[in-house]
Amino acid sequence: MHIVDIITKKRNGEKLSKEEIKYLVKGYTDGTVPDYQMSAFLMAVWFRGMDKEETVCLTKEMAQSGDMMDLSRIHGIKVDKHSTGGVGDKTTLVVAPVVSALGIPVAKMSGRGLGHTGGTIDKLESIEGFRTDIPEEQFINNINKINIAIAGQTKNICPADKKIYALRDVTATVDNYSLIASSIMSKKLASGADAIVLDVKCGNGAFMHDTDSALKLAKTMTKIGNSAGKRTVALITDMNEPLGRMVGNSLEVIEAIEVLNGNGEERLTEVCIMLAANMLLVSDREEYFEDCHSDEERRTKATETVKSVIKSGAALKKLAELTKAQGGNPEYIYNTSLFKTAAYKIPVKYNNSGYLSYCDTEKVGKASLILGAGREKKEDKINHYVGIELLKKLGDYIGKDEILAYLYADDKEKAEEAESMILSAYEVSPEKPEKNKLIKGFVC
Amino acid sequence: MHIVDIITKKRNGEKLSKEEIKYLVKGYTDGTVPDYQMSAFLMAVWFRGMDKEETVCLTKEMAQSGDMMDLSRIHGIKVDKHSTGGVGDKTTLVVAPVVSALGIPVAKMSGRGLGHTGGTIDKLESIEGFRTDIPEEQFINNINKINIAIAGQTKNICPADKKIYALRDVTATVDNYSLIASSIMSKKLASGADAIVLDVKCGNGAFMHDTDSALKLAKTMTKIGNSAGKRTVALITDMNEPLGRMVGNSLEVIEAIEVLNGNGEERLTEVCIMLAANMLLVSDREEYFEDCHSDEERRTKATETVKSVIKSGAALKKLAELTKAQGGNPEYIYNTSLFKTAAYKIPVKYNNSGYLSYCDTEKVGKASLILGAGREKKEDKINHYVGIELLKKLGDYIGKDEILAYLYADDKEKAEEAESMILSAYEVSPEKPEKNKLIKGFVC
Repeated sequence: MHIVDIITKKRNGEKLSKEEIKYLVKGYTDGTVPDYQMSAFLMAVWFRGMDKEETVCLTKEMAQSGDMMDLSRIHGIKVDKHSTGGVGDKTTLVVAPVVSALGIPVAKMSGRGLGHTGGTIDKLESIEGFRTDIPEEQFINNINKINIAIAGQTKNICPADKKIYALRDVTATVDNYSLIASSIMSKKLASGADAIVLDVKCGNGAFMHDTDSALKLAKTMTKIGNSAGKRTVALITDMNEPLGRMVGNSLEVIEAIEVLNGNGEERLTEVCIMLAANMLLVSDREEYFEDCHSDEERRTKATETVKSVIKSGAALKKLAELTKAQGGNPEYIYNTSLFKTAAYKIPVKYNNSGYLSYCDTEKVGKASLILGAGREKKEDKINHYVGIELLKKLGDYIGKDEILAYLYADDKEKAEEAESMILSAYEVSPEKPEKNKLIKGFVC
Repeated sequence: MHIVDIITKKRNGEKLSKEEIKYLVKGYTDGTVPDYQMSAFLMAVWFRGMDKEETVCLTKEMAQSGDMMDLSRIHGIKVDKHSTGGVGDKTTLVVAPVVSALGIPVAKMSGRGLGHTGGTIDKLESIEGFRTDIPEEQFINNINKINIAIAGQTKNICPADKKIYALRDVTATVDNYSLIASSIMSKKLASGADAIVLDVKCGNGAFMHDTDSALKLAKTMTKIGNSAGKRTVALITDMNEPLGRMVGNSLEVIEAIEVLNGNGEERLTEVCIMLAANMLLVSDREEYFEDCHSDEERRTKATETVKSVIKSGAALKKLAELTKAQGGNPEYIYNTSLFKTAAYKIPVKYNNSGYLSYCDTEKVGKASLILGAGREKKEDKINHYVGIELLKKLGDYIGKDEILAYLYADDKEKAEEAESMILSAYEVSPEKPEKNKLIKGFVC
């Protein structure tokens, strides 16, 4: 087999065989296929696409390019959840303890990644003492004991994806459904879960800007998951404004606790409940659905079950258990005033009046990054305590000089920059606009 | 400027500015743009193409990426000639002394390259003593003295083309008109000639298989040349069988001498005359055309002038002068029996009878390569004395066991391999087929 022939075949719009895709991914991972051939191939894929079979095959090969998590020592159906990313997305912090409290084992290994805030493990580290660098043995033991563990990725998961992703970024080959889907799903396949619930964000703060694109990506990803024998469903959820009120690390943990306390922001709470309910639905725990006679009834039951495990305080308790098991101070979960705070809390006053009708979500994310809550480069250190609290949501009325948001900042200059970024992100209209639909689609 | 933005723009089908093309070529030449970005760009060009302005700009930037030949010390209009390559193409060996004898300065610097035989300078080196590694000073002096010099390329001509060409070869981005044309023409622009005659080969032994493709390439190249202020014309000539009777190095010199002696193979002679006549036409030497009143008359006059300089023996004498000036034994030109010969002369008997109706020209070229006449890799040494003599041309009748060709070989095993390659290259039909048109087009 020759790489040039494989590139030529894809360039000419022909379908690649499994052997060809395997040869390419294996060769690129071990370095025998150089970057310049892979980038030509990726550009050919950008133009020609890959069909479902090719995409599934590419994903499996990428998943198998490194270590595969073996979760067989954990009892029960493991359900993973993945979000394609947005601003203020702290759903994992809510959903993980909720489903764990319902008896679904949560075995989450996450990277730190780049973004407007840190990842889930960065956020958890804002709790005093919380360790995410626990060894695999403890990780497995914790799950078998308290049904949940969230740790940093230590294994060599999907090296092919790491290399390909980095290459796509600098060769204008990022935006292709097959490549996006295979990148996300290869990591999910390698993570060892039995079922997967995807949260495909859609809007100006997400990678997918419109519902059609988000649906297409969701379909591609669920097809991959199901083809690999993992039950996979996807929700398409709105990202035309930050999710919830908080953007930051400790701030998002605090907001997640609010949701687990039953007093979370409305839309954030709804997304969390929908995601958790779907995780329950794909978890195969029939004891919850014994008296259900239709899918509709099962869905209603799942939602009710999730709501009740929050209401009962069991989910919040699970977060405290997780915190304790990983060396953190569980008191933080019950008393969020214990969290360290940033040096300054600065009100951002709006310079106009009307109903908030548009939010450039990306700009709010950038403001968070400016404050120091996220990473632009891998080496960057994040600041756990800075961030943004939004007092208004789209559709709310705001008066001139009324406070739109608070900045939590450690640096006044950066705060000024973040302030003008946030002010420029919003628009108002004299009439109250219609709310953006929160749940825009469902793919199974 | 960012390379990713330039790749994205081309990928999206937008037109690149001159500044962007310059930035890309400069960056790739100096190494700040890595191979993987250039290959993604080239694949985007494969899909989107480049318009005339972009192609002209790319070519100029590639030409200026290294040394530019300065031929200003040579008096008169310098006319260069370039063939896109085929099997048995020894026209330069004829055309260069012909036009030199007509007063047009010939300043040819060629690379050795890869192919079924060596390049022009390899061929000339089969003449005892002929040196092609002469210093630039002598090169210029020789031209001012005897009006001709042919030497190996020593300067750093078009490094961007060298890098891009090597990359295209391994990334399935060879076959694109703008990239092919810019590669050829950048070297022509850097070579310092004032006018250019292109011989675009067309047929199964050439890169361009059909007349339409050859015409398209010819138009792209003449547009580039003329845009750069160099009068450029192109002939489209047949390559559905080897040109002339000989394929090899010394063998082709011998055949060129036959043409200069006035007893060359018919089609080869015609192509040489047409090329030389066009070189004369673009050379601006009005003394030849004083009594011409139309383009038609000028063309006829040019052809007659070329024929007469051959007939007079002046062109042959010029080849002998060239040989002497570069250290070779001029006796070889007048007595070709002096050429060293290969160890074996092996007849290839045809295994069928009928009119030769088809030749897989590429296979004849490969047979020559097998015998050792050409280079597969840069490091390969060529054998100057091996090759093929074809006794039959398409349209000729051949009887069973009649001799189709002679192999000149130094290795009997390789000769066997070459023999079956040649036998498999030809087909016969019971009826005499129509001759392939020799001159398929002209672009100016």
